[in-house]
Amino acid sequence: MPEFLELLPPAQALRRLLDHLPAPDPVVETLPVTQALGRVTARSVLSPERLPAFARSTVDGYAVKARDTFGASDSLPGYLILVGEVPMGAQPGFDVRLGQAALIHTGGMLPEGADAVVMLEYTQAARPGEVEVLRAAAPGENLLHPGEDVQVGQEVLSAGWRLRPAEIGGMLALGIGTVQVARRPRVAILSSGDEVVPPEVTPMPGQVRDINSYSLAALVERSGGEAVLYGIVPDRAEVLEERMRAALAECDVVVITAGSSASTRDLTAAVIGRMGAPGVLVHGVNVKPGKPTILGVCAGKPVIGLPGNPVSALVIAGLFVAPVVERLLGLPEGRPKACVPARLAVNLPSQAGREDFIPVRLVAGEDGYRAEPIFYKSNLIFTLAQADGLVHIPADANGLEVGTEVWVERL
Amino acid sequence: MPEFLELLPPAQALRRLLDHLPAPDPVVETLPVTQALGRVTARSVLSPERLPAFARSTVDGYAVKARDTFGASDSLPGYLILVGEVPMGAQPGFDVRLGQAALIHTGGMLPEGADAVVMLEYTQAARPGEVEVLRAAAPGENLLHPGEDVQVGQEVLSAGWRLRPAEIGGMLALGIGTVQVARRPRVAILSSGDEVVPPEVTPMPGQVRDINSYSLAALVERSGGEAVLYGIVPDRAEVLEERMRAALAECDVVVITAGSSASTRDLTAAVIGRMGAPGVLVHGVNVKPGKPTILGVCAGKPVIGLPGNPVSALVIAGLFVAPVVERLLGLPEGRPKACVPARLAVNLPSQAGREDFIPVRLVAGEDGYRAEPIFYKSNLIFTLAQADGLVHIPADANGLEVGTEVWVERL
Repeated sequence: MPEFLELLPPAQALRRLLDHLPAPDPVVETLPVTQALGRVTARSVLSPERLPAFARSTVDGYAVKARDTFGASDSLPGYLILVGEVPMGAQPGFDVRLGQAALIHTGGMLPEGADAVVMLEYTQAARPGEVEVLRAAAPGENLLHPGEDVQVGQEVLSAGWRLRPAEIGGMLALGIGTVQVARRPRVAILSSGDEVVPPEVTPMPGQVRDINSYSLAALVERSGGEAVLYGIVPDRAEVLEERMRAALAECDVVVITAGSSASTRDLTAAVIGRMGAPGVLVHGVNVKPGKPTILGVCAGKPVIGLPGNPVSALVIAGLFVAPVVERLLGLPEGRPKACVPARLAVNLPSQAGREDFIPVRLVAGEDGYRAEPIFYKSNLIFTLAQADGLVHIPADANGLEVGTEVWVERL
Repeated sequence: MPEFLELLPPAQALRRLLDHLPAPDPVVETLPVTQALGRVTARSVLSPERLPAFARSTVDGYAVKARDTFGASDSLPGYLILVGEVPMGAQPGFDVRLGQAALIHTGGMLPEGADAVVMLEYTQAARPGEVEVLRAAAPGENLLHPGEDVQVGQEVLSAGWRLRPAEIGGMLALGIGTVQVARRPRVAILSSGDEVVPPEVTPMPGQVRDINSYSLAALVERSGGEAVLYGIVPDRAEVLEERMRAALAECDVVVITAGSSASTRDLTAAVIGRMGAPGVLVHGVNVKPGKPTILGVCAGKPVIGLPGNPVSALVIAGLFVAPVVERLLGLPEGRPKACVPARLAVNLPSQAGREDFIPVRLVAGEDGYRAEPIFYKSNLIFTLAQADGLVHIPADANGLEVGTEVWVERL
């Protein structure tokens, strides 16, 4: 498929890529729950226990038989005999019978015989050994029954769920010490271009340092993948093909930055076309920056050719590499993306039919944030380093006017 | 300061805490740039080199002397003698003189004598060894001068900047291999409560497993801190004080979940009050969940007492522990928080004067996301595990109506 014969909108291009991938089937890894933050469940998680394990009070107050409180009010209090205080972390050691009450703290175990808790605020001290109840409690009030939160065998987490602090604590509360998560997809990263040298080398005149391998590796890592660097590949078909075939065999995804000139991009597309069916699926996306993007599937694995330009490579990786990593992790598609609401500080022109991603700085104003575009000539990577995020101009907009409300996506 | 004598709004409570902390002065750690993703710069980063190091073409085209193209058009092309092709990654090895042009690729080094590049699209093949120029190029057009992007000694990153993929790539592009970052603040985490047992222990009747230590450790880690677990402390003043003093001496922040009942919370506040001036600054915040929050500063270090309830502890840690970690890292205050715009699926009542944080699930609809509150009785941690984020109801709202646009903050 020659470059730019058909320019797909980014969402359609991604759809075509994902539709050509096999169903996600992540390799399963078992991890201690305490080391699983940010990982994605590979299996649903079932509770081995019930929660709470015993009837617990949800307030500070008095454990009672509810019927003993019926009709109690400020003007007509009920009087109950105090039979003890429930110790925290142990069985009460006594029962509550008709006409009796026991002091209980939040989280304390309900004594046998009690079926409700009256909040401390609705009681007052009476004669020694007695308590005055000023309000009625319904049976079950202010307590949790065993298993009311979680039943044995209940699914508490589905497969394909990214673990946050709440889930880490939740599993430990149920005595779940290890969790099956998806192994991080291995993403091969290759940089092509005869002018590119490794960052530790001092460039000779005409040479530049490799940026893309490292900014892309960081993006892959942040998305939940494992970056495997294959270094810099010269712009020769046979070397490129050999290195890409090795990467395809060893990794789950291959990403190559395809050099800056049209000829090296065509070379990349040709090599992807030879590496396995269906080969190149998309060659050119209707987006700025990043038009010369190549998306393909070879031997069941995604192969992505990114523009050589560092800004384009990073923006486009956010659009295609991150979703591919998430797909391989088993995460569901179309989950909400967090962003920052802002108003445009200037008019932003754009070409109708093309989607634009404009780096912006967010400046706090009286009425929320203003998004100030960062204009640039050379696609310098530090343009992005100065930006708080990207503003997306849709294809059907003829640019966006100053004051328009926009959603700024993080970089 | 006794509990709930004065209930501060959350923003004011945080302000009071931060205003009592010394100016941030993070310990500096030097890291390879490739391992610094997510870390925060401790010093500004200056460029040791200029970028680009040589005059580079930003397009595929012909390097020319601009004056040779003046007046060129489709109907009156200019004819130039082709003197060569600029190799990628090397010096051209020839000059461009009056009446001459050289083929150059994007990123190629401009030959001596040339001062502009004509895009390939505006040229066509002529007789062998000649090129036809169909449009004029201004001096400097389609090229970058040495140092135009970055000058030697220029500040490319300020101190207190969180490193993202763009910054990682950007530093490597300048030959910067190591970066000075703020050491992760050490956050001591203690759980109190006689009913609490470690997660690997099977609870006896009346006991529950520790959740907070682990959900809070995960939150601290995600905020850029290092969690140091001090385990479970019994509800006795002398033991609590001894363990908290050790934590205060060894760490930069102390966080304790203060037990569920009012008496254990008062105990925590009393101990914080004895650990150094100014001691307790806030005791009670006008927020739900999380009213019984304690904020203090002892010996120049923040000490935070969280409610024992796991949902409250995690929500409140997001409001106070995360900003404290960011402050100690040297990050500026008030940076935009990413969120997901949605519309409320139901009416949400709330008490005027109090701020509420309601866990919600986000459901994709035709017109964006609907936020569906997750109601709960017991502050079960899995309430949060089912939630995509929190909806904030401000103090002056008397609840929020169905259909209201809300910003859902991630958990």
